[in-house]
Amino acid sequence: MTDFRTAAQPFAAAFFDDIRRESRDGPGVSRQGYGPHEEYVHEKARTLARELGMEIDTDPAGNLWLTRPGRDRTLPAFVSGSHGDSVPQGGNYDGLAGVCAALTVAWMLEKENVQLERDYRVLIFRMEESSWFGRAYVGSLALTGSLLPRELELRHRTDGRTLAETVAACGFDPQVMAGGRPLRDLSKIAAFVELHIEQGPRLDASPDRRTAVVTGIRGNLRHKICRVVGETAHSGAVDREFRHDAVMALAELLNTMDRHWKAWLDRGEDLVFTAGVVNTLPTAAIAIIPGEVSFGLDMRSLSMETIRAFHALMVEEAERIGAERGVRFEWDDVLVCEASGVDPAVRAALESAAGRHGIPVQTMPSGAGHDAAVLSNAGVPVGMIFVANQNGSHNAREAMDIGDFMAGCELLWHTVCDFDLR
Amino acid sequence: MTDFRTAAQPFAAAFFDDIRRESRDGPGVSRQGYGPHEEYVHEKARTLARELGMEIDTDPAGNLWLTRPGRDRTLPAFVSGSHGDSVPQGGNYDGLAGVCAALTVAWMLEKENVQLERDYRVLIFRMEESSWFGRAYVGSLALTGSLLPRELELRHRTDGRTLAETVAACGFDPQVMAGGRPLRDLSKIAAFVELHIEQGPRLDASPDRRTAVVTGIRGNLRHKICRVVGETAHSGAVDREFRHDAVMALAELLNTMDRHWKAWLDRGEDLVFTAGVVNTLPTAAIAIIPGEVSFGLDMRSLSMETIRAFHALMVEEAERIGAERGVRFEWDDVLVCEASGVDPAVRAALESAAGRHGIPVQTMPSGAGHDAAVLSNAGVPVGMIFVANQNGSHNAREAMDIGDFMAGCELLWHTVCDFDLR
Repeated sequence: MTDFRTAAQPFAAAFFDDIRRESRDGPGVSRQGYGPHEEYVHEKARTLARELGMEIDTDPAGNLWLTRPGRDRTLPAFVSGSHGDSVPQGGNYDGLAGVCAALTVAWMLEKENVQLERDYRVLIFRMEESSWFGRAYVGSLALTGSLLPRELELRHRTDGRTLAETVAACGFDPQVMAGGRPLRDLSKIAAFVELHIEQGPRLDASPDRRTAVVTGIRGNLRHKICRVVGETAHSGAVDREFRHDAVMALAELLNTMDRHWKAWLDRGEDLVFTAGVVNTLPTAAIAIIPGEVSFGLDMRSLSMETIRAFHALMVEEAERIGAERGVRFEWDDVLVCEASGVDPAVRAALESAAGRHGIPVQTMPSGAGHDAAVLSNAGVPVGMIFVANQNGSHNAREAMDIGDFMAGCELLWHTVCDFDLR
Repeated sequence: MTDFRTAAQPFAAAFFDDIRRESRDGPGVSRQGYGPHEEYVHEKARTLARELGMEIDTDPAGNLWLTRPGRDRTLPAFVSGSHGDSVPQGGNYDGLAGVCAALTVAWMLEKENVQLERDYRVLIFRMEESSWFGRAYVGSLALTGSLLPRELELRHRTDGRTLAETVAACGFDPQVMAGGRPLRDLSKIAAFVELHIEQGPRLDASPDRRTAVVTGIRGNLRHKICRVVGETAHSGAVDREFRHDAVMALAELLNTMDRHWKAWLDRGEDLVFTAGVVNTLPTAAIAIIPGEVSFGLDMRSLSMETIRAFHALMVEEAERIGAERGVRFEWDDVLVCEASGVDPAVRAALESAAGRHGIPVQTMPSGAGHDAAVLSNAGVPVGMIFVANQNGSHNAREAMDIGDFMAGCELLWHTVCDFDLR
């Protein structure tokens, strides 16, 4: 058989280049979920699927399923994929690496004329990123019947349209998406394997083990947009004791939680805490005590118990600070994605393929959440492959070496080919 | 003589109503310096001046001088006025009360056919508020030759035009404004008295002493827009020790300075400290560690030494925090307005007029800065009258009772009439 990396790299590189070119936005790329640049990824995938003779199916949430039939079509399928969207001015590989890996395997199966025992399916999710609407994993939540109707009422942070309106404008069915039932029969998935860039510095620090088999996935709890409401007043004429300064109250809350966070890490908890968006009102000015400030929050851990306890502590601290300063903290609904494990059998399949084909791997938990976690929480057996990358992710400087990608992609390839040889 | 308050109140009320109607912006008013709504105030004043037979003079900064000639035109004039602009969605009375009071006195002088010993001049300053360009007191600084050429390069916070371009578009001469020389002969001002709403809660808390004679004016030091620059990264995949989170660094700085501020007040310093504007980038998102945040700062005190020491402490704390967190604080140029006293003779004239005519007054320092302070620092003998108001200022809920205004206005009236009787 042809050397996988040598044979398949031109296909993968061309795919990455094409998508980058189309979705370029300044130094990075922007591909909003249910927007034209995400749609372009799906169009491109449909075109490739036609060339490869695959069956094409789009579910009511717009997730794309491309199937290469196996010998026994009654068997549940081996599924691989990821999401085609990105954060605003993000990198090209977060999500797209997994899409490209799944397509590259399909391309190689066709090129090598391999017929597998069971169906091999590429699955491209819609809107994994929360950047525009505050809700992450929209495509996979909808697939698993876990998207809530109220989440469809979240509004786009700049154009103000609801998620439901945005989905409908893209040609899909918001009512069915949040109908509380899976959009496809999940028992027909034998394994879902998602390849993803690591998004952290660990694999890139290793000279030789630059691929990882993931052992578990952090869950998260988010507030899209909360507010501190105090009282606007003249910055010179109102002394400290008469102030209800929203910014100072938020600064105290964030700094207090930052110190708690440090203490929780010191005692061994797994936790990250981020206030990624903070904004005073458009009418704010230097000589005005700010009467209002908005902020978004993200907490993640491998333990949902840790997240919930930290969230409760934050609300408690905010109440104390609010009472002391005469300001009110207004919390919007929490958006939760449960932490998840990976399936032991799928993980074993990945590790044994790595061993058999001499691909050096590490094992590590995933700090970020992924569509794979949503599927895992819905009972699908999942596994994940991480690929070394540079400069993290969710930023324009995100990078990935195509050689590292091909190593991870080869691990997927062997896992797919060997799945029924175990 | 006709009762001043009864006779003049309809004139004053009509002036306030007319300007409010024209500059209404949602629940408040917006009159940007060198913008159309400030210009409307000047137009209205010119119309009134023509009706009252006053001489009209506009200096190169666009400040408007309206003169009622006295018997001896070689004597320096008694001047009164304030500014016609407002903060965005601010109240109608901050600045405009002093303009209206000075015009009301001119109207009454004409109505009563009073000829004073010396010229009486109404002076309406341009752009006292810093909201759009970050530089306060632009008209009075220009008048006194204290506006710096670099300050003309400050940019409008939304349309991006420089202050110089904005001034020129309004028909005035930015080069002359920042030429380092007074625009009019300041020795021709015997006294400048500015009536202003208090902007704080003290006068409004008194049942009977709702007018104040001011004893001194806080100076201020401002940063229009500073930045914290860290590193954008994925909020789930990058753990606390690898982060360079700009928002958390700013929260620590503000919370630290808030605690220092409290301690300084406890040891008796006069100081206020405000971060009125805080914004992450438009590309910020919930799932991204913020790599940048911008903020504006305002520090005020009756003592410039206190301000400078607090500023130095802030820079020192920022350096410590920046080193610990691997972020960089970027400071823009400081904008300074010196604290000032009031002229003892002018203050005495105000207090004796109050005593003679039975107007109950308090004495108090001014927390806010004023054009009067700029003139005082240029050697002009100044005094100030404060009028009780509600809900502070620099916000749309700012309010003032016309009865309280007329009491302060009557104090100005008697001080003008009695000035050469002392």
